[in-house]
Amino acid sequence: MGEFLIALVAMFLAAKIFGELAERVGQPAVLGELVGGVIVGVSGLHLVDPHKSEIHLLSELGVIFLLFLIGLETDLLKLLAVGVASSRVAIVGVVMPFLGGWLVGYFLGLPSLVSIFLGAALTATSVGITARVLSDLGYLQERESQIVLGAAVIDDILGLILLTVVGSLAAGHALTLLGVGRVVIVAFGFVIAAIVIGSRFAPTLIKLIQRLRVAQALFFFSIVFAFSLALLADRVGSAMIIGAFAAGLVLARTEKGNQIQREVHDIASFFIPIFFVSVGASIDLRTLNPFEPEARRFLLIGLVLTAVGVVGKLMAGWAVSDRKLRRIVIGVGMVPRGEVGLIFANIGIASGILSTGLYSSVALMVMLTTFVTPPALRALLLQRKSGKYEGVSGFVVDAPFEDDTDFYESAEGEKTD
Amino acid sequence: MGEFLIALVAMFLAAKIFGELAERVGQPAVLGELVGGVIVGVSGLHLVDPHKSEIHLLSELGVIFLLFLIGLETDLLKLLAVGVASSRVAIVGVVMPFLGGWLVGYFLGLPSLVSIFLGAALTATSVGITARVLSDLGYLQERESQIVLGAAVIDDILGLILLTVVGSLAAGHALTLLGVGRVVIVAFGFVIAAIVIGSRFAPTLIKLIQRLRVAQALFFFSIVFAFSLALLADRVGSAMIIGAFAAGLVLARTEKGNQIQREVHDIASFFIPIFFVSVGASIDLRTLNPFEPEARRFLLIGLVLTAVGVVGKLMAGWAVSDRKLRRIVIGVGMVPRGEVGLIFANIGIASGILSTGLYSSVALMVMLTTFVTPPALRALLLQRKSGKYEGVSGFVVDAPFEDDTDFYESAEGEKTD
Repeated sequence: MGEFLIALVAMFLAAKIFGELAERVGQPAVLGELVGGVIVGVSGLHLVDPHKSEIHLLSELGVIFLLFLIGLETDLLKLLAVGVASSRVAIVGVVMPFLGGWLVGYFLGLPSLVSIFLGAALTATSVGITARVLSDLGYLQERESQIVLGAAVIDDILGLILLTVVGSLAAGHALTLLGVGRVVIVAFGFVIAAIVIGSRFAPTLIKLIQRLRVAQALFFFSIVFAFSLALLADRVGSAMIIGAFAAGLVLARTEKGNQIQREVHDIASFFIPIFFVSVGASIDLRTLNPFEPEARRFLLIGLVLTAVGVVGKLMAGWAVSDRKLRRIVIGVGMVPRGEVGLIFANIGIASGILSTGLYSSVALMVMLTTFVTPPALRALLLQRKSGKYEGVSGFVVDAPFEDDTDFYESAEGEKTD
Repeated sequence: MGEFLIALVAMFLAAKIFGELAERVGQPAVLGELVGGVIVGVSGLHLVDPHKSEIHLLSELGVIFLLFLIGLETDLLKLLAVGVASSRVAIVGVVMPFLGGWLVGYFLGLPSLVSIFLGAALTATSVGITARVLSDLGYLQERESQIVLGAAVIDDILGLILLTVVGSLAAGHALTLLGVGRVVIVAFGFVIAAIVIGSRFAPTLIKLIQRLRVAQALFFFSIVFAFSLALLADRVGSAMIIGAFAAGLVLARTEKGNQIQREVHDIASFFIPIFFVSVGASIDLRTLNPFEPEARRFLLIGLVLTAVGVVGKLMAGWAVSDRKLRRIVIGVGMVPRGEVGLIFANIGIASGILSTGLYSSVALMVMLTTFVTPPALRALLLQRKSGKYEGVSGFVVDAPFEDDTDFYESAEGEKTD
């Protein structure tokens, strides 16, 4: 228990100290949380071991709460309205990086399974990081953001399908059309079913909850609802975060949507930094020491993969047909691989497809795409917007170099509801 | 992860469904949470295994948050004002049950070490359960409650001292006056030092926190402060919950005391039910089957221990000299052994001092004293008071059989700040 509390204290301190530093230099707090994670994690002070089951579970709760909250803040109708654009972005954003990664492997003369894996690892989009930045900057309701959000969710579903396919290739199984078809139907079917069935029954459930006398019934009902959909998603072969996101979408449309969002805010903001610090803590910088000759080759491969990955996702931004939209924002929003990329890399090394060297190359790509996005998005968004916004994390943004005393008051930790 | 989410969902559903039922029959919600725990735990559906490290850690966070919140709601000066009365209650409440338990062992012809252990197991007071009931009933600010709270904290400290002494006896070590003296000084010294030093530096820290830009700085600072004092308490040989309580006492006296209490409320109410459900889930009813002849003897011993334990703690109530106080409330408030009693019982069985039979007897005593207190306290308190109060859990009480529509509105889960 003592060790666990030390890890929690280290994570919160890292998140808030580096979050504060990030904001002081004009960056989103989430960047600070990632850097703070590197400092307290396996590359730094070793205070936080993200592979320990207790920390891992809390971090998973963090990303579940994050996607639940993002779902609560998302208008399903707005999301559907950009459905076609999102699908185009998602498909281009999966196909181009996959081809790019495969080509890198091909030119390096790697076995075709390894090349396929490199391609697959490049397809992921971390909806968590982009959504957090968009929310932090008060940009979540814009059309570009909705497209990115929709595309990232579709990307997650496509990523799961790829993961299943690559996983069975790695296990030496032959691909069958029936097998792939089943995975595709389950993955997309879950989201549609969850939203349709959920929207049907949630209002009745909410009415029942309101008749209860017990304290905070709505708060616990919402959490149980989110956890249950996450579990269900996992059971049918989809991802937990997709279930949590669907739960948020559904509850947002009920009459108690705003109240649920308010009530879940504090508990979510307890768990969310644990997730981002864990992502940072799991990055091992030692494998990329440029002064070791054998590490240098993989450093170079990692940089090439990063370039291919960034270009591939930027091209996804240009897949939208509406010229009034800022395609560069959409492209950059798709760039971070985050935890999804790390999951791919870990499966690769565990199944023996990736050598430790190539694992480091993939990890470097994940790291760079993840760390570069928050400042890049912020720079792009603040070109157009200024003023103050309050996001998921309650982070308050003001225009750069604009100093007013009121700022300090609103950032000091006051509850926002 | 799936298993963990299932356990969480089961715990929240158990807590809220049985909490609701408890309130419908006029009992505090905490009783429902304990019963719900029995249903989903090792005696029932086996959905929650409280000995699993992930569940155990969350449950420990629950009791840490509970004591932190109780500390935040407690006025240190009021607590000190009843210091003498609390000390008397605590000492009588330790000495009498200890003698009683020892006598039971003596008359049964048990070895003296076993008799000492039975006595020690009877001395514990679960500050958690009593404080929760008092808070649920809006009675936490009354003088009787302050005396019970102070006495329960002193009892915890005395219990730790006894635990160390009994533990070293069990390990075959000889008792030295120096060793016992050291334990006593550390145990009491920690609380005093934490409050004195904490009160000195907390206001300065709070001022620093207010200058931060990062979101929810005060929220995270408070949690880190509570966890750090809990850790420190553990390191110097005191108990984590005493550290958390001291942290609450200290922060309550700063200018941001009320705001901290409000901000920590939601996160605390997420973890607190996990603790109470876990206490219920760890109770194994099968060892007390009255239809098995060999179990019947230990059932009887358990009932005798319960009687001795209840009488001993009631006598503690009569240790206060002020006749205007309701001594019966104080005595009943000291009765529940809760988790502390179970910790004693587990050490007893792990060290081989208690047979599985005697372990069950002690567990029965813990169970009965724990389950009987919430309804008994409620019955006693509602003799005098009526109206509505809002406690730690946000539980709203109204006078029995009084029906008004406003009740439903305020109980429906609305945020209270």
